[in-house]
Amino acid sequence: MNEIKIFCPATIANLNCGFDILGLCLDVIGDEMIIRKSSNKGIKITKIEGANLPIETKKNVAGVAGLALIENLDLDFGFEIEIYKNIKAGSGIGSSSASAAGAVYGINELLDRPFTKIELVYFAMKGEVIASGSEHADNVAPCLLGGFTLIRGYNPLDIVEIKSPNSLYAIVLHPHIEIKTADARAVIQPMIPLQSAITQTGNLGGLIAGLYTNDYDLIGRSLTDVIVEPFRKHLIPHFDDVKNSALQNGALGSGISGAGPSIFALCKGKEKAKKVANAMKKSFLSTNIKFDIHVSQINSEGTKTIMN
Amino acid sequence: MNEIKIFCPATIANLNCGFDILGLCLDVIGDEMIIRKSSNKGIKITKIEGANLPIETKKNVAGVAGLALIENLDLDFGFEIEIYKNIKAGSGIGSSSASAAGAVYGINELLDRPFTKIELVYFAMKGEVIASGSEHADNVAPCLLGGFTLIRGYNPLDIVEIKSPNSLYAIVLHPHIEIKTADARAVIQPMIPLQSAITQTGNLGGLIAGLYTNDYDLIGRSLTDVIVEPFRKHLIPHFDDVKNSALQNGALGSGISGAGPSIFALCKGKEKAKKVANAMKKSFLSTNIKFDIHVSQINSEGTKTIMN
Repeated sequence: MNEIKIFCPATIANLNCGFDILGLCLDVIGDEMIIRKSSNKGIKITKIEGANLPIETKKNVAGVAGLALIENLDLDFGFEIEIYKNIKAGSGIGSSSASAAGAVYGINELLDRPFTKIELVYFAMKGEVIASGSEHADNVAPCLLGGFTLIRGYNPLDIVEIKSPNSLYAIVLHPHIEIKTADARAVIQPMIPLQSAITQTGNLGGLIAGLYTNDYDLIGRSLTDVIVEPFRKHLIPHFDDVKNSALQNGALGSGISGAGPSIFALCKGKEKAKKVANAMKKSFLSTNIKFDIHVSQINSEGTKTIMN
Repeated sequence: MNEIKIFCPATIANLNCGFDILGLCLDVIGDEMIIRKSSNKGIKITKIEGANLPIETKKNVAGVAGLALIENLDLDFGFEIEIYKNIKAGSGIGSSSASAAGAVYGINELLDRPFTKIELVYFAMKGEVIASGSEHADNVAPCLLGGFTLIRGYNPLDIVEIKSPNSLYAIVLHPHIEIKTADARAVIQPMIPLQSAITQTGNLGGLIAGLYTNDYDLIGRSLTDVIVEPFRKHLIPHFDDVKNSALQNGALGSGISGAGPSIFALCKGKEKAKKVANAMKKSFLSTNIKFDIHVSQINSEGTKTIMN
């Protein structure tokens, strides 16, 4: 196999009570990449469509992630990468992670899988540094592995795949506004009340238990964020109204996707998800800000080959 | 049925990463109580053996918990309670919780179960206030329900029973020292670094996932406390040595039971648990402080009737 075409899905990180440790994989939105072996060593980005991103390998998320993977292998060939972006940068649904995950997944396939998908998370995180300034795995892990993933810890990296019910759907509403990374970070408090940490831990425990036992009510009761959302939501116009519309129409929970500005909701069943999406859409229309909205089943497969 | 004899087990709360929200139920150590219907309304404590505790109903944990249960029922009779304490007060393995849980369990049985065990937690918490000054459920919930229990939240009270593997054993070493409540509380920081909360949340998620999937290694990796143990352990002589002995001999994890001074460890299998208990015992002997040590399977039943 010399060439592979892959799908790298969007993801929702944080999920209310899982700040920095939890994420899930979507299936209706994602980038495509074509990766092929090349007689030239190293990695060359040969095409980027759909986004204005640096094409220089060491400045490109996919390039850096790919280099991290191959740097310890003694290869006498290299790779060319074409990137077709559908996930908008800065949307809060894992745009850079999809590029990082796609690069390492595709290269690993072309090399006949020297690494497991979980091992690939490590390399993809190296690419994430270019986009976010820090190594984090809460988007690249669900993007590669699919489903819900928990980052138990980083020292060493410890990824846990969490079983989830089949009828869980996610809605993502992406307002076309830019939240500056500096602003998103500035509202996060470096010190928090112990009581908030206890509340958050209880909710995260409830969410994990609810996912394992298909207890949708428990999942819903657990989807609460007392640490970040109360501060960050003010950066997203109309956040409370959209969230309340989702909850009033039967969503299990709703919150900020990643660092925003996307707003997500989780629902039981496709019909309920469509109803909730309509309500969120209607609520946001009054802002006159452009937006996309997606309804997606949880993608249990993660990054995948679509042609080889 | 006019009289019931019950067993009210000891419990371990906090379990490293579940400060204030997680507990488990032991089966080799616990109190016994005899509760009988009386023609006199209200509740009368008629006997307390094994501990020097107030016999006045409104100053006694069992009395207050029992009163909380019956106060909304229009009964033309009351109850007498005999308490046989085996769990030492201030040991950190739920002595007051056992009394509170036992009282409400026994009265509920004699009334033909108007309440579920989960509903009884609410009344038992009222008794806990007498002992600890605040309503908390992380001991009374596992004492009543058995197994591992998670307090997802208090407003409203939301108890989640967590499935756990059959071969899990707990060891409890109880040093015969008194930690003053004021000292145990003084070392707790009201504000904590966000990063510590993230680490703790990741570990709690890992522990819950490990319990559901019988993944003992994951359970072990998750049994870490970065919030309370680093400060509270200094109140327990020889804590680090006992903990390290447990870990070096194959314990999955070890930490402070409740607010201490008891030190617990969790193990896979009875033989490993005995080996770990011996190592902990040997390590603590050098202190010349008296202690008890118990090896117990997880008690899946909780408070139970032993004669009626």
